[in-house]
Amino acid sequence: MTSTNETHDPKLRSWVTSANSGASDFPIQNLPFGRFRRTGSPEDLRIGVAIGDQILDLRSTGLIETADMNILMTMSLKERHRLRAAISEGLRAGSDRQAAWANALQPQSQSELALPCRIGGYTDFYTGIHHATSVGKLFRPDQPLMPNYKWVPIGYHGRASSIGVSGQRFKRPQGQVKPLDTDKPVVGPSRRLDYELELGFIIGRGNALGEPITIADAEEHLFGVTLLNDWSARDLQAWEYQPLGPFLAKNFATTLSPWVVTMEALAPFRAKFDRSPGDPQPLPYLESGANRERGALDIALEVWLQTAKMHAAGETAVRLTHCNTAQAAYWTAAQLVTHHTVSGCNLQPGDLLGSGTLSGPAQGEAGSLLELTLGGKQPIGLPNGESRSYLEDGDTLTLRGYCERQGMVRIGLGEVSGTVLAA
Amino acid sequence: MTSTNETHDPKLRSWVTSANSGASDFPIQNLPFGRFRRTGSPEDLRIGVAIGDQILDLRSTGLIETADMNILMTMSLKERHRLRAAISEGLRAGSDRQAAWANALQPQSQSELALPCRIGGYTDFYTGIHHATSVGKLFRPDQPLMPNYKWVPIGYHGRASSIGVSGQRFKRPQGQVKPLDTDKPVVGPSRRLDYELELGFIIGRGNALGEPITIADAEEHLFGVTLLNDWSARDLQAWEYQPLGPFLAKNFATTLSPWVVTMEALAPFRAKFDRSPGDPQPLPYLESGANRERGALDIALEVWLQTAKMHAAGETAVRLTHCNTAQAAYWTAAQLVTHHTVSGCNLQPGDLLGSGTLSGPAQGEAGSLLELTLGGKQPIGLPNGESRSYLEDGDTLTLRGYCERQGMVRIGLGEVSGTVLAA
Repeated sequence: MTSTNETHDPKLRSWVTSANSGASDFPIQNLPFGRFRRTGSPEDLRIGVAIGDQILDLRSTGLIETADMNILMTMSLKERHRLRAAISEGLRAGSDRQAAWANALQPQSQSELALPCRIGGYTDFYTGIHHATSVGKLFRPDQPLMPNYKWVPIGYHGRASSIGVSGQRFKRPQGQVKPLDTDKPVVGPSRRLDYELELGFIIGRGNALGEPITIADAEEHLFGVTLLNDWSARDLQAWEYQPLGPFLAKNFATTLSPWVVTMEALAPFRAKFDRSPGDPQPLPYLESGANRERGALDIALEVWLQTAKMHAAGETAVRLTHCNTAQAAYWTAAQLVTHHTVSGCNLQPGDLLGSGTLSGPAQGEAGSLLELTLGGKQPIGLPNGESRSYLEDGDTLTLRGYCERQGMVRIGLGEVSGTVLAA
Repeated sequence: MTSTNETHDPKLRSWVTSANSGASDFPIQNLPFGRFRRTGSPEDLRIGVAIGDQILDLRSTGLIETADMNILMTMSLKERHRLRAAISEGLRAGSDRQAAWANALQPQSQSELALPCRIGGYTDFYTGIHHATSVGKLFRPDQPLMPNYKWVPIGYHGRASSIGVSGQRFKRPQGQVKPLDTDKPVVGPSRRLDYELELGFIIGRGNALGEPITIADAEEHLFGVTLLNDWSARDLQAWEYQPLGPFLAKNFATTLSPWVVTMEALAPFRAKFDRSPGDPQPLPYLESGANRERGALDIALEVWLQTAKMHAAGETAVRLTHCNTAQAAYWTAAQLVTHHTVSGCNLQPGDLLGSGTLSGPAQGEAGSLLELTLGGKQPIGLPNGESRSYLEDGDTLTLRGYCERQGMVRIGLGEVSGTVLAA
């Protein structure tokens, strides 16, 4: 696993001055990767690195040759470190690259961001133990968690084609719902549309079919982290999910943040990963000293809602909930990689692994409305007098994430935002 | 829906004489699409049409310009009909194209076949009602089918990266299994490895996100049909599948036949689709006159096994089971397309929809060993004295499919074959 080095030095400043405010998600200690073009232009997507309120066009710097993010993501750990060091050095205040690289900058405000890579495979996990427990309680008060939960990193394959980048606007999904008071299902727009607060882990190097990735090697296959909103239609899901899992309830839209914050950038924000007393230790294939010592991620997460009425009145979004990844996730990202491939399954560059809904241990820290409103029974009041059990048409939901630690510069994951349109 | 036309004329003969035997899967009435290259050559894949024991290199004929099957698959119905008619005419005995096209032929025996297209999304359904009932009985004798089964075309997203073409050799998967007599799972190779006999439907034109495909339009989005073996590790599945469905139990390998038999070729082999008395009629969005009249497919399916011992002794494969699609499937391919997109989910050219395991109504017609051996309790005896509860290392499993009808030329789907290697 990566340890901190001089690219994390809190004293580092950039000649891109907007990066130095302390408030930017993208100080020189971050350097996340994304794909962009000039807003409204038909040009090919370019690979960029966010710095303050600018984007550095990476190919223009001469540091990389490929224009394909999925190829760039296959770099070895050593190559990743070298590239990060070179970008950091060139953006540093006083760098002799400043004159040349100034031409490689483009303001984020004049850029259109795309999905950071082509996502061939999308797998969603279920690592949020407080989420799994709260949701389980709604259906099975006596046994909220299934017997397999504490042994198996539960996951399922998701739909990659409907993943969109932050700013995605999608129609409320339709499908079959079974009302409690009839014996026949009806078809119509979902009335229990929810968000799910997740992290998305992006795979760098893949593995060959039949060659599992050991827990010792797993971090080398992780390129970085994004924010992920796994929109869910609870009423569709309740009727369809047995016995093969969620399908239409999830496949109508999934929204991803545009910037991949690398594992290198996150190195100072790793945390101990340990089991509570009474919980089983992970089976040997999911266990390593390094994973125990610093397998977890210390990332703060927030959920913000702006309704159509708030938008029309010029009112800003309100925060619905917040939590910390390290408290929410029962499995580490490395464990997800290893478990996914233990069967022999091949991961490919650009594949996306969702953490599953991340909820903190307290009631107000829930990563979904299903939990926050106790299945819709306790609607949330909003400051403008509106209330929400589930999402309404015109609602814009935004997830934010950032890392803060004593003595380190705050780094952000940016945000992922999406808007519900009428069916 | 396509109706029969002169390209189906049973009197048609080809100047490629191997197509005329009556025994070939690929008479001139079939004309399935695939991708090939010369065996062992590094050349790019080419688009071909199987005819007898030959492959017609389609771009060499001048009929198409693209070398990309996924692009070719986006043809409109009209373009598909026109291309089929032109290929049929050029391959017909007496055609003035014979001299020119003879150079565009390559023997199948000297060719390496690839997956017929890039498969971006793979969804597996559960349309085999006899399969669902038999498997359900093993776990829930009182209520074999879930209450949703007769209303919802149950499906889940599968793993596309591990799909291979016929001839795939894969290692027995490993994973967690929970023995009945302990309270802790163990990790190791699956001991209940099974095949699943399925059809694979390949999507031609896609749809935009948020724009469902109606049942009236669904057939236009179906390009054709393949054979699909959805290998399954029953012991991994039993422990992991709750509550989000199968994951490692399915994602280690899935094998597809190389030739896509088009909906046009299958036109003479469509069948009435109707509900048994007592079963609910499909909800309106899944219902149309055309779907009722000829939504089903009359395809005979067979499963063949050759063990390592049989192979070593020069003994050919034995048939384990057979059934007919029209008797096995509770939903039509058009209904799967419509249901998949009713949420707004976007299908893309080359996407693969699996039918789910197809079993006939009789015990010997089961599309999996799980059913044939009653969960492993009644092993099958083989002619050489071996027996099988589940698949053993070295077993080669082959699925075959073909259409036969009075007055029509038999057309085949070819075969899909795969071999289990030691973990």
